[in-house]
Amino acid sequence: MTMATPKTTPTVTNVLHTAYQKSVASYWNSEKDPVNLLLGDIDGLYHHHYGIGDYDPSVLEGPETVGSGGSRDDRIITEMHRLETAQAKVLLDHLGDVSPGDRLLDAGCGRGGTSMMAHQRFGAQVDGVSISEQQVEFANNQARQRGMADKVRFHFRNMLDTGFETGSLRGIWNNESTMYVDLFELFAEHARQLEFGGRYVCITGCYNDVTGGRSKAVSRIDEHYICNIHPRSDYFKALAANNFVPINVIDLTAHTIPYWELRAKSSVATGIEDPFLTAYREGSFHYLLIAADRV
Amino acid sequence: MTMATPKTTPTVTNVLHTAYQKSVASYWNSEKDPVNLLLGDIDGLYHHHYGIGDYDPSVLEGPETVGSGGSRDDRIITEMHRLETAQAKVLLDHLGDVSPGDRLLDAGCGRGGTSMMAHQRFGAQVDGVSISEQQVEFANNQARQRGMADKVRFHFRNMLDTGFETGSLRGIWNNESTMYVDLFELFAEHARQLEFGGRYVCITGCYNDVTGGRSKAVSRIDEHYICNIHPRSDYFKALAANNFVPINVIDLTAHTIPYWELRAKSSVATGIEDPFLTAYREGSFHYLLIAADRV
Amino acid sequence: MTMATPKTTPTVTNVLHTAYQKSVASYWNSEKDPVNLLLGDIDGLYHHHYGIGDYDPSVLEGPETVGSGGSRDDRIITEMHRLETAQAKVLLDHLGDVSPGDRLLDAGCGRGGTSMMAHQRFGAQVDGVSISEQQVEFANNQARQRGMADKVRFHFRNMLDTGFETGSLRGIWNNESTMYVDLFELFAEHARQLEFGGRYVCITGCYNDVTGGRSKAVSRIDEHYICNIHPRSDYFKALAANNFVPINVIDLTAHTIPYWELRAKSSVATGIEDPFLTAYREGSFHYLLIAADRV
Amino acid sequence: MTMATPKTTPTVTNVLHTAYQKSVASYWNSEKDPVNLLLGDIDGLYHHHYGIGDYDPSVLEGPETVGSGGSRDDRIITEMHRLETAQAKVLLDHLGDVSPGDRLLDAGCGRGGTSMMAHQRFGAQVDGVSISEQQVEFANNQARQRGMADKVRFHFRNMLDTGFETGSLRGIWNNESTMYVDLFELFAEHARQLEFGGRYVCITGCYNDVTGGRSKAVSRIDEHYICNIHPRSDYFKALAANNFVPINVIDLTAHTIPYWELRAKSSVATGIEDPFLTAYREGSFHYLLIAADRV
Amino acid sequence: MTMATPKTTPTVTNVLHTAYQKSVASYWNSEKDPVNLLLGDIDGLYHHHYGIGDYDPSVLEGPETVGSGGSRDDRIITEMHRLETAQAKVLLDHLGDVSPGDRLLDAGCGRGGTSMMAHQRFGAQVDGVSISEQQVEFANNQARQRGMADKVRFHFRNMLDTGFETGSLRGIWNNESTMYVDLFELFAEHARQLEFGGRYVCITGCYNDVTGGRSKAVSRIDEHYICNIHPRSDYFKALAANNFVPINVIDLTAHTIPYWELRAKSSVATGIEDPFLTAYREGSFHYLLIAADRV
Amino acid sequence: MTMATPKTTPTVTNVLHTAYQKSVASYWNSEKDPVNLLLGDIDGLYHHHYGIGDYDPSVLEGPETVGSGGSRDDRIITEMHRLETAQAKVLLDHLGDVSPGDRLLDAGCGRGGTSMMAHQRFGAQVDGVSISEQQVEFANNQARQRGMADKVRFHFRNMLDTGFETGSLRGIWNNESTMYVDLFELFAEHARQLEFGGRYVCITGCYNDVTGGRSKAVSRIDEHYICNIHPRSDYFKALAANNFVPINVIDLTAHTIPYWELRAKSSVATGIEDPFLTAYREGSFHYLLIAADRV
Repeated sequence: MTMATPKTTPTVTNVLHTAYQKSVASYWNSEKDPVNLLLGDIDGLYHHHYGIGDYDPSVLEGPETVGSGGSRDDRIITEMHRLETAQAKVLLDHLGDVSPGDRLLDAGCGRGGTSMMAHQRFGAQVDGVSISEQQVEFANNQARQRGMADKVRFHFRNMLDTGFETGSLRGIWNNESTMYVDLFELFAEHARQLEFGGRYVCITGCYNDVTGGRSKAVSRIDEHYICNIHPRSDYFKALAANNFVPINVIDLTAHTIPYWELRAKSSVATGIEDPFLTAYREGSFHYLLIAADRV
Repeated sequence: MTMATPKTTPTVTNVLHTAYQKSVASYWNSEKDPVNLLLGDIDGLYHHHYGIGDYDPSVLEGPETVGSGGSRDDRIITEMHRLETAQAKVLLDHLGDVSPGDRLLDAGCGRGGTSMMAHQRFGAQVDGVSISEQQVEFANNQARQRGMADKVRFHFRNMLDTGFETGSLRGIWNNESTMYVDLFELFAEHARQLEFGGRYVCITGCYNDVTGGRSKAVSRIDEHYICNIHPRSDYFKALAANNFVPINVIDLTAHTIPYWELRAKSSVATGIEDPFLTAYREGSFHYLLIAADRV
Repeated sequence: MTMATPKTTPTVTNVLHTAYQKSVASYWNSEKDPVNLLLGDIDGLYHHHYGIGDYDPSVLEGPETVGSGGSRDDRIITEMHRLETAQAKVLLDHLGDVSPGDRLLDAGCGRGGTSMMAHQRFGAQVDGVSISEQQVEFANNQARQRGMADKVRFHFRNMLDTGFETGSLRGIWNNESTMYVDLFELFAEHARQLEFGGRYVCITGCYNDVTGGRSKAVSRIDEHYICNIHPRSDYFKALAANNFVPINVIDLTAHTIPYWELRAKSSVATGIEDPFLTAYREGSFHYLLIAADRV
Repeated sequence: MTMATPKTTPTVTNVLHTAYQKSVASYWNSEKDPVNLLLGDIDGLYHHHYGIGDYDPSVLEGPETVGSGGSRDDRIITEMHRLETAQAKVLLDHLGDVSPGDRLLDAGCGRGGTSMMAHQRFGAQVDGVSISEQQVEFANNQARQRGMADKVRFHFRNMLDTGFETGSLRGIWNNESTMYVDLFELFAEHARQLEFGGRYVCITGCYNDVTGGRSKAVSRIDEHYICNIHPRSDYFKALAANNFVPINVIDLTAHTIPYWELRAKSSVATGIEDPFLTAYREGSFHYLLIAADRV
Repeated sequence: MTMATPKTTPTVTNVLHTAYQKSVASYWNSEKDPVNLLLGDIDGLYHHHYGIGDYDPSVLEGPETVGSGGSRDDRIITEMHRLETAQAKVLLDHLGDVSPGDRLLDAGCGRGGTSMMAHQRFGAQVDGVSISEQQVEFANNQARQRGMADKVRFHFRNMLDTGFETGSLRGIWNNESTMYVDLFELFAEHARQLEFGGRYVCITGCYNDVTGGRSKAVSRIDEHYICNIHPRSDYFKALAANNFVPINVIDLTAHTIPYWELRAKSSVATGIEDPFLTAYREGSFHYLLIAADRV
Repeated sequence: MTMATPKTTPTVTNVLHTAYQKSVASYWNSEKDPVNLLLGDIDGLYHHHYGIGDYDPSVLEGPETVGSGGSRDDRIITEMHRLETAQAKVLLDHLGDVSPGDRLLDAGCGRGGTSMMAHQRFGAQVDGVSISEQQVEFANNQARQRGMADKVRFHFRNMLDTGFETGSLRGIWNNESTMYVDLFELFAEHARQLEFGGRYVCITGCYNDVTGGRSKAVSRIDEHYICNIHPRSDYFKALAANNFVPINVIDLTAHTIPYWELRAKSSVATGIEDPFLTAYREGSFHYLLIAADRV
């Protein structure tokens, strides 16, 4: 079994199916938020997701400008990056047994940070897909600079219709990218690509069916990112409908709040910190990891 | 068959099931938008929905202050109210054959305007339900002032669980109130209450599956009203799943845009006009009437 | 995207799957009803559907034999044809935006009248399919005579399995041809062929779930045409199950009754007029237009 | 567990839900076909179903008028009645273990013949329901004359909504009465009434999915009886959806053809014999027995 | 339409998908039970299923060692083989019309006995599949010895994914092989391979939903054969979900008990006789034949 | 809302619905395994489930007979009991916020150990149900001895049909009791009883869809306990179908193996240790905790 090489260069027309997808692509093509770029500059792992774990409160103390860890801002940014990277590590911890000969898919890869970490850990070939051409180009450049370009490749493709071969993948993940698509369509495509027994992992924000419909804070996040945050229940319905069986589910909400508290105090805050903190604290929003097997 | 008299006064606890519903109730309990109150003052029909039809451009012309139709603002407000009332008329046009002995439900009745118009047209008993106690009290006061209190009654109840008797109703409508609830739950409860062959009508804003997920403008509306606008497809799936069969579907989008254009120019604009106009014009949002039979 | 050229000439064996389909094909192969042929002779648009709109009562008056509009019979036939053509126009009014470069499918095309009207209006390529070889031959002859043969083509194929390429069509319609097939199978095949956002329109007679099961009059129509008239509910269930979302539904029943009244008085009445009028008037049967988007 | 005594005498309003049901009731209320009455006169078992098994060809021979078995017509009628009764016996053979203390339901009981045979065989209480008041009255008279009125009772009720107590029945059958109702609704009501492990049996004509849609002959039967013959597949889908599991399925088609051949030659032929024989012989129609357990 | 020739020799990897399937294959690869081999030696029809019909009690009588029918053991074994062959005959009786030009599939063919009987009866080409390479090799040897190798072929393949062409088969059967697979997956694959109107037959042991969950005796059988006996209800749910419509269902339980009683007294008893007899007699287990059409 | 007091003492007839349930009840009524009784004797918490966590290897060392912790056997039994109690603690850790005024259900309560721990922790009223009258009597005796009889009550009832009031419970758990029932029926009944937002927790052994069907070892366990171990996938399908949304899923397999290793070396080993260890180690079986919210 070999990974299908795309027969022809996909064009914008067939990667971006809808006006909605075009607006999402446009957002990310022009996005240059320091919260993503400055943090990635630290070690070349550019993430587009949030962090988990307690932050070291000492980064907030000490001199405002220069210190052993740089300025206060530098220290905060370094700490935030550490928490982001910790999140990606937890995601990869749930991918199960992956061998160097396996192939993995990073669905909604952003600038490619998690893909590179996955290759470093498992040796496996990793393909990342994004509907932002700028992200794909950026990520491929990073892969080249790191000498991974033969094993880690990024593609301008739609994760609902990747063109990869049926049954060809050992693992797939979505690191905060499921809120842009319909979960039933997404998991159908994932199920198609994974081999029997393959593993799927996602980390995602989802709203809480127990508190009811999307709260004001959740709609604010949707508006900000032009995304469509799903209720928690949708994940499990869509998994069950597509031959995925959970093996681990972890509520990371309490673990991501410190990241947002730190970010709110940083120079790279974007203004969306408040809705996130409100939503998590009022219980209308969860930060969830799901690991499931394809059967 | 008789309408169940509520055995006990429902308490907040069992009317408001979730934190989400409490936040919606709180919004409407404190709402005193002139766009609703000033317009209702004209003739005592207080609406909580939008209008349809072309407006008379002359209301924008003429003297800013006093004229034959009052000040420019007065003229605009009177015209907007005319369009709102026209919308409610179109809704009632699709209720089918209703006799004075029949009973009707206004699900999400706001301050009761459509309920009163329905009683005036058909002579039937109308019950309206709202999760806002203020709205219910306001509407019952209106019914008393108009001498309709024995035939038009408003209740502090949840439309997902009204307590009305199974099979007791000839007609039900939602006039812009479906975006606060899950459609499958709503139509299940509607189906329970309607007699075989009873009629359901809704007018609603819904987002367009053809343009894709919820657009930025639609999420802005969701945030503003703490609502959860559904895709158009959800209406037809939920109707099909609950023994409802459409008999008329009308795309009112082009007919509601004039209302919003006029409102944007009025003194009672709330700031949400722009997202509505953007969403309708870009095609990501529809204003739809659906009439369906319970079978 | 190009329309698949049929690789091999389909044979009767794989176009006609069942004994039922063979009996339907046989009926239409031998059908030479004046109500279809004489009316088509007027302007070369041969329809196999009914009309809508009020007829001009003056066609029934005046001299029995010769007059300015020909004999009374000639006048009636011309008027019936006008109503048929009006029906096809209303159908095409709901096809949405169609460009000359688009492709359309007339599913159950009969002798091709609607196909030709569609090409004339939109400039688009139209393919019609029928399981009657005689109809296909007749329609292709008409297309040649009208100089449209390069853009309007008729095929001896089963609309449940056309062989056309996936996602290749902008629009599909059924003009009174859905009663010969299972709707779930039909809409699955339509959904396969349409591009995302493509439009489907049908005009059809359907029986009314509200009055209950198929009435005597409806079964009489079924027997006459060897067809299987569906309940109205089946249309909406099958659309919902196949990613179609209604945008317009119009009850044309009142608009088609005049056509049948006129036809009952014409020389080309076939005897089925009475069951149609009975069924429409007693409410057990609807004449319905549905327009829906493929999502 | 006791059988619910109907609290109030049901009125026509709530027994006959739809115009369709009213037309069926009207048909059977005025029906006085000799094929049903003359045959029942023989031994007081009035059937409304067809027969199975080979007929004795000698009944067709011998003197036209008087003979040992009466006139030729008398002999034919006696023989037809024997075949009808044989059919009911086969149905009862599949009811499983029934004790005198059990309760049984004859759903669509006609003039009560099968109900009385069931009581005679098992000693159990039998309730029959019909939407024809004339049939109910006739059948109750028969029960009185036979001294069974305390154990065999007939009710003017709708088999889709009998009012009998949940879980109260050991067995239910439909002897050629399923073609008047939706099978999903019917089996839901049957499932409600049967105890866990209770038995359901039906004998029915159904059209054959393998030959395709309803044939001309089948639609002719539908028109004649104002019924809605189902495809064979619908039975198994509706059983599976309502917790019924088949234990025996028998194709009785070949066994019922002799009955129809004899009937076609009898004086009590109604004209529907030809469509039945055509449909059975061309394979578009089956005569089927299904026995299933409620689980 | 031609049967797809396997493009490449399938390897163990893609025939055996799961650890479970590997354990089943391993069991059958090493199986050399006299109850299968000795009986097959009689006439070269090697069965892996049980028998039906009454046995001749005289085989148990007479001399222990030598007699006209051989020793008592020889007589018993011959009689058991007769009952097994009778079972296969009944299965083939329900395959419907099969012509020499048709193709048939024996899904889970064991050592090929039923396949050869089918070819002898119908003249049709028969393909058998098994996940035991030893069985496939053994069966192909038998076919060669009998001169049938051009028409009866056995393949090392998984019946859930045979690689045979869509719509290429007239008939498929499972003779006691459904308990190794998920029925929904199996019938989906069967439905894919059969032509419209094709016939499916299975004979199987299934547990009885009426007595409840799997009994101790049934679990003992599961353990013995590493199989997963299904409830009776699963068969009908999975058929209904995959376009199969039953035409005959026969409860063979009473007919198979004599075989087990005889086997329990034979020298080739394997120890599993007791659980079978217990399960059949207590009613927790059925031996069922199902014949169904693909529509 | 008050807990329904059972109106009448349930009889065996309506608690035990099937022969299967009777055999399970009979097993547990006569069960007196030291592995359950001796361990419970230690502190009066009688468990019918397995343990988690590493055991202290020193219990295996030291004098065979007398030591500080009693004999070697005593030390092992005490250690096994510690691990069992640790398992119940982990289960209770996932019940969420429970107040003294809340009510909880222990579905399949055995001799009541977990119920008593729950009451001790939360102060809430706990009802336990079991289909073994002996277990219920034993557990009620324990509750009396511990002075909890007014708050902790055990009932001879079927967990598929408890008779408790709709929406009356805050939490429900199954501690190794789901393998005796159909999960869809069970979760439907649980969903009925829980309030919106109520919590469900189960710990269970389930077989692994990834390794395929039930392995030989799993069937051995099924036979031993007359149970029906479900595939992991069934849990998530049945939860999704019954309005339950997972919030935590933990694979406890590695954590329960030490318990089984210790038990295999103990004097109270029952012989089933080997199949458990085989199944867990080969990966065909999981020990899983699921916590889910009722929405």
